[in-house]
Amino acid sequence: MESRNNTAVQIVLESFKNNIKRASNLLGELSNEDLQQEIVIFKNTGHYLLGHLIAVHDSIIPLLGLGESLYPELTEVFIKNPDRSALVKPNITLLRIQWDEIHKVLLEKLESLTAEQWFEKHTAVSAEDFEKEPHRNRLNVVLSRGNHLAYHVGQLVFLKN
Amino acid sequence: MESRNNTAVQIVLESFKNNIKRASNLLGELSNEDLQQEIVIFKNTGHYLLGHLIAVHDSIIPLLGLGESLYPELTEVFIKNPDRSALVKPNITLLRIQWDEIHKVLLEKLESLTAEQWFEKHTAVSAEDFEKEPHRNRLNVVLSRGNHLAYHVGQLVFLKN
Repeated sequence: MESRNNTAVQIVLESFKNNIKRASNLLGELSNEDLQQEIVIFKNTGHYLLGHLIAVHDSIIPLLGLGESLYPELTEVFIKNPDRSALVKPNITLLRIQWDEIHKVLLEKLESLTAEQWFEKHTAVSAEDFEKEPHRNRLNVVLSRGNHLAYHVGQLVFLKN
Repeated sequence: MESRNNTAVQIVLESFKNNIKRASNLLGELSNEDLQQEIVIFKNTGHYLLGHLIAVHDSIIPLLGLGESLYPELTEVFIKNPDRSALVKPNITLLRIQWDEIHKVLLEKLESLTAEQWFEKHTAVSAEDFEKEPHRNRLNVVLSRGNHLAYHVGQLVFLKN
């Protein structure tokens, strides 16, 4: 039974890591100039999506109770506001460094969790609600962020020439 | 422990169902004319992606040992060949009906599986390999198809005006 728990955790974590690997490979194929383009006219640029994904993945750390965000300043620009806000975006070269850094740190933290900890509640749910909704755990958060990543990778892929 | 397995299964299945629901809602907002468009110039049309997703989800049935595909004829047009093949595509109105039907049938089958069955191997892996790679089970297949769906929904969303 314990091994089955580990299997479920392993499946979700490996899937998340594969999504990140695929995204990293794609970003490696895209130049900064490619990323500056809008994916579809009047829609998000690659620049915005790159920052958005870093900000969202960074926010997994406090959500899972694993420490503090590395780049909380990205939330304002890349989550709370759309691409065409008046806010200045950190440049793509810096974001590429942060992309690597956040995933190094995040995956290290995720890999250190025990099977039991994966099934514990995340910080945005109360103990009471968790009793009624036991699926609101760490595993669910990572699964859902993996889907979100796949969604945007499906868009970034259009920037390839 | 058993309850944790159930929780893991519930999480993955709910996530897959949510992806399907989001895709169905999006398809409801898109007209047949919208779907005929290429998402990005020279890339897949919504028509092709709709057929592709039906064909891929249909193939989950035999892969998980749950019966036969409903629409095996779609494989040739929408999986083995690209959008710009000379093959005639079933029309969008028919595909919309098949979209609803395949998900009705597939989800019924998935919901009838016990937690134990989710952790059994799928049909494309041998018993020997499964012993070495216990993650190659039904849960993993559905998780991975959910990611694949999210990837293409991220693209279809650009057809909204």
